[in-house]
Amino acid sequence: MTSTPVSFRQAQAADLERIVQLLADDKLGSTREVFSVPLDPAYLRAFESIATDPNNELIVAVQAEAVVGVLQITFIPNLSHRGGWRALIEGVRVAAEARAAGIGRAMFLWAIERARERRCHLVQLTSDKSRPDAIRFYESLGFVASHEGMKLPLAASDQRR
Amino acid sequence: MTSTPVSFRQAQAADLERIVQLLADDKLGSTREVFSVPLDPAYLRAFESIATDPNNELIVAVQAEAVVGVLQITFIPNLSHRGGWRALIEGVRVAAEARAAGIGRAMFLWAIERARERRCHLVQLTSDKSRPDAIRFYESLGFVASHEGMKLPLAASDQRR
Repeated sequence: MTSTPVSFRQAQAADLERIVQLLADDKLGSTREVFSVPLDPAYLRAFESIATDPNNELIVAVQAEAVVGVLQITFIPNLSHRGGWRALIEGVRVAAEARAAGIGRAMFLWAIERARERRCHLVQLTSDKSRPDAIRFYESLGFVASHEGMKLPLAASDQRR
Repeated sequence: MTSTPVSFRQAQAADLERIVQLLADDKLGSTREVFSVPLDPAYLRAFESIATDPNNELIVAVQAEAVVGVLQITFIPNLSHRGGWRALIEGVRVAAEARAAGIGRAMFLWAIERARERRCHLVQLTSDKSRPDAIRFYESLGFVASHEGMKLPLAASDQRR
């Protein structure tokens, strides 16, 4: 594990540039994110939507005052499972240099504990089948690939923007 | 298609018994739901949490004044995809007698249109690999099984209830 302590907290607006940089520094992310200074205002609007929603939390891993990891947790009330809440994790990124130090694992264990605090009966995520290392990582945490993760992109022209 | 018109709307509290009955009348649902009159209060609490959250909608299909289908849509703000919103669909059930009439398909097309109205760039769901018919149904609607759907159940004793 790492010798420099790592901590986890809710993301703040001042973290946003670094978070978008992390999202863009990725095989798939590089094709769909745009990191610029100042940021595209769409990122600011999304951050505001997340920060003001009590059922969404953006979590960052911080080491030596630098953001080295990020993930988002959405807490979802459901009728099924006798009215149980579930936690959905999306947008996971860990800086390349921090992965070997076990920071991704520590961040996930923190998020799973947060889901327990919020009384969730289940944590779920989808992982792109083109990322076998990520899938093995989630399996090592106890996740089971019991489901197909199915996606339907909606054409931009259909979004009435 | 069906000769009796079907319509779609937000679920109301008066629909809840019928919805839980639909959730329980299912291969997997029968092992985890409890349909009783009156309902387990946990279902009422979950319904209240969904109904009061502007980012969760419980949709019912209604035919001849009877609820014949249900699904839940969660609208999720994300930083990724340049701050795009996505729609997550969970808890899909259609009464056995309504499936042949195309009501499941009509309900999904309605939900996808609702996701467009909410400016989502993506609709996603997970489908249990033990339900090949469901997976084929979603593929016929354009969903692609590009991801693994990974689940981590949290032990009840860990939930501090």
